[in-house]
Amino acid sequence: MGLTALCPGTFDPVTNGHLDVVRRAAGMFDGVVVAVLENPSKAPLFTLQERSALLEEALRDQPNVRIGAFGGLLVDYARSQGADLIVKGLRAVSDYEYEIQMAQMNQRIGGIETLFLATSPKWSFLSSSLVKEVARHGGDVEGLVPDVVRKALVDRLGAA
Amino acid sequence: MGLTALCPGTFDPVTNGHLDVVRRAAGMFDGVVVAVLENPSKAPLFTLQERSALLEEALRDQPNVRIGAFGGLLVDYARSQGADLIVKGLRAVSDYEYEIQMAQMNQRIGGIETLFLATSPKWSFLSSSLVKEVARHGGDVEGLVPDVVRKALVDRLGAA
Amino acid sequence: MGLTALCPGTFDPVTNGHLDVVRRAAGMFDGVVVAVLENPSKAPLFTLQERSALLEEALRDQPNVRIGAFGGLLVDYARSQGADLIVKGLRAVSDYEYEIQMAQMNQRIGGIETLFLATSPKWSFLSSSLVKEVARHGGDVEGLVPDVVRKALVDRLGAA
Amino acid sequence: MGLTALCPGTFDPVTNGHLDVVRRAAGMFDGVVVAVLENPSKAPLFTLQERSALLEEALRDQPNVRIGAFGGLLVDYARSQGADLIVKGLRAVSDYEYEIQMAQMNQRIGGIETLFLATSPKWSFLSSSLVKEVARHGGDVEGLVPDVVRKALVDRLGAA
Amino acid sequence: MGLTALCPGTFDPVTNGHLDVVRRAAGMFDGVVVAVLENPSKAPLFTLQERSALLEEALRDQPNVRIGAFGGLLVDYARSQGADLIVKGLRAVSDYEYEIQMAQMNQRIGGIETLFLATSPKWSFLSSSLVKEVARHGGDVEGLVPDVVRKALVDRLGAA
Amino acid sequence: MGLTALCPGTFDPVTNGHLDVVRRAAGMFDGVVVAVLENPSKAPLFTLQERSALLEEALRDQPNVRIGAFGGLLVDYARSQGADLIVKGLRAVSDYEYEIQMAQMNQRIGGIETLFLATSPKWSFLSSSLVKEVARHGGDVEGLVPDVVRKALVDRLGAA
Repeated sequence: MGLTALCPGTFDPVTNGHLDVVRRAAGMFDGVVVAVLENPSKAPLFTLQERSALLEEALRDQPNVRIGAFGGLLVDYARSQGADLIVKGLRAVSDYEYEIQMAQMNQRIGGIETLFLATSPKWSFLSSSLVKEVARHGGDVEGLVPDVVRKALVDRLGAA
Repeated sequence: MGLTALCPGTFDPVTNGHLDVVRRAAGMFDGVVVAVLENPSKAPLFTLQERSALLEEALRDQPNVRIGAFGGLLVDYARSQGADLIVKGLRAVSDYEYEIQMAQMNQRIGGIETLFLATSPKWSFLSSSLVKEVARHGGDVEGLVPDVVRKALVDRLGAA
Repeated sequence: MGLTALCPGTFDPVTNGHLDVVRRAAGMFDGVVVAVLENPSKAPLFTLQERSALLEEALRDQPNVRIGAFGGLLVDYARSQGADLIVKGLRAVSDYEYEIQMAQMNQRIGGIETLFLATSPKWSFLSSSLVKEVARHGGDVEGLVPDVVRKALVDRLGAA
Repeated sequence: MGLTALCPGTFDPVTNGHLDVVRRAAGMFDGVVVAVLENPSKAPLFTLQERSALLEEALRDQPNVRIGAFGGLLVDYARSQGADLIVKGLRAVSDYEYEIQMAQMNQRIGGIETLFLATSPKWSFLSSSLVKEVARHGGDVEGLVPDVVRKALVDRLGAA
Repeated sequence: MGLTALCPGTFDPVTNGHLDVVRRAAGMFDGVVVAVLENPSKAPLFTLQERSALLEEALRDQPNVRIGAFGGLLVDYARSQGADLIVKGLRAVSDYEYEIQMAQMNQRIGGIETLFLATSPKWSFLSSSLVKEVARHGGDVEGLVPDVVRKALVDRLGAA
Repeated sequence: MGLTALCPGTFDPVTNGHLDVVRRAAGMFDGVVVAVLENPSKAPLFTLQERSALLEEALRDQPNVRIGAFGGLLVDYARSQGADLIVKGLRAVSDYEYEIQMAQMNQRIGGIETLFLATSPKWSFLSSSLVKEVARHGGDVEGLVPDVVRKALVDRLGAA
């Protein structure tokens, strides 16, 4: 029987970098649960429902991926979903250190492993906050996010 | 005559990683002053009095350690306490760069040296904020903080 | 025909580290535009007008440097000023990763290159926020910022 | 049907840190192939046969792990073994950058993904070269390597 | 009057990543001198003449780029060529620290500035040594190096 | 009773950066032993006797500093000298990771602590190998090493 991977994040909004990691995980594992963090510490631009809907739309072509949401401990959510491991994309060295600490903590408190995937080089400069920053000032984010997200950014933040 | 070391921090709350650094400093130097920052930039979970009391309790077995508090420049407080040097634990590379900058600034404005101790491997994934995050969602932090802190976290944040 | 470089930043307030980068850029390129970010995400200590005036004063001896301000996308402002490239100083490794991401994004959305200059060693521990932190607690920042900034800090934050 | 992971390395000699990664991989995936690099660029202390035999001995309790060796491209070897993915342990930030480059290259030339596991904190200070350095000068490496390796080091380098 | 930039390196052999940096520099500055290090500390795969010829061929379409060679101090060579500044590409954080030290040393002993360009994301995993490693084992490096270099690698190291 | 610190290194040759660390340690602790590594893995430019003599000369004004040499485990040498702790200077992030690993290993096998001092900003670009590289090509290293070392470099490597 195959493995189920959990891909957690805030996804405010999902970028092509996130999608690349989820699709690569979906190509390796039997199932992938994209786990959207309900209440991130910084107020999100999009509601949980909006962030989940954008993910649903962008990942419609992936039959073995489903979208979920969590508010408590990631390890509890992983257990409730029958996930066997956590998969995270890594961009920069500064990401790495924080993610290692989270991985070691989740191993300790929940006995679940985190596996890291290197972000594809072409998305290595990409983050949700940079995308929002660009969109907020009228920059065009075509090719950085799926079309459905690009439209949502224009609707929320004004003309492209 | 021996040396007195100052171990500054926010300690919101003290973890086993902090205690490891303070105890190792206490084993090397004649005296150690744990210097609690009164008003950190982010609102603390515990008041200065609470943070100091938890430190007192956790370090009761260390005769040459005392707990103090400071609100102004660290170098002024160090001078007022007769401290000869500052001792800080280092976990990650990202800590390191900020701490180096602080150390060089304190050297320049106060003529006091900072000595760094590598955090013990087993606490390298540990931070006060991660501990609070886990406790906030009902995770168990046993073995990561002293018992007295674990109880304080449950009292403040809800059931373990 | 010569090149014009853009040096962007918040400059809240300008330090000797910033001035070192701007002066070195002014020595290499025909013209330098110092581009002050109007509304940084954290509330600045000095208004845009104050930050610009301090820069004007500190760079009065540099005939090929002028001070500007921008609120939208940096790449749009660079184009409007006829800038050929962006010049940024780099201190630490953690700076580096964020700056690389910004540079790659600006290349993509605006087709403008960013060139990085290593901060002079003697300013490598210096940042606007550290200077404000020291000044706020009555520490002396002489030699870290130009005199006009030192006076402004005392006026705003109290006795040196 | 389950997944087979490949754990490549020089293993000169295998340490408890390597074993920790292999065992964690063996707990997640159906099969693990430990792939020993035949001719590392630096002359190894132990021959390929010796390095492989030590791994066999140390991993005897893992029914789904087998030991192999490769001399050419890792991606070719992975294909020949039916491996679905590569698993590597990561200790330090400097490891990370080199490993990321290797992972991206292997993805490009061989279409195979590399998944990274954070080394357990207690082995984060451990490397084959440090172990050899200690053993060479008569230091005791008990608890850092399996007993069989400890004996082999004493035999090769002199009294413990 | 325009500026001349010096792009130093070993170029053993030149990769698409190097070419990207040289071309971007050639687009910004009046002239670019590619400065090939005569005797790198590690024995090169290609002679100085071969490395230079491959660069000539690969940069034939760049009228304002010429190829040179140096054996002594880079700052002396830069002066002899009338170069106004040094331009270097940066990939990883570990590159960055060494390059910063070289830049500060060259500033001190030769009064010449080094400007850094972030490597394009798509070449961030690329290095001459990784390319040689792949080619040595019969991997195909198409798209990673110019065709002329790919042929030279096959001639030197065997069938693609 | 006071503390004795051990400052280990290859010192091939000693630079002003090394001297800065030793002098700052000598200002804090009762005694400092500078421990010269006898046979570094790379063939040194100066013999052990030469490296020690240059240190003796450069540190003649420090009454509480003495020069020693070691060939085996650092922790054994520290014990034989009655040293209470190890003091090391740190320049870059890449230094840091290796040094942390050494410190944790020395703690484990010898029970001795390593304290790190941040290199003074003005020496942060300085290393023995960079100094030799510059001197080898006839560059002037005045102000980077003590005069006695500068003379030794000219004698060994040719005209300044």
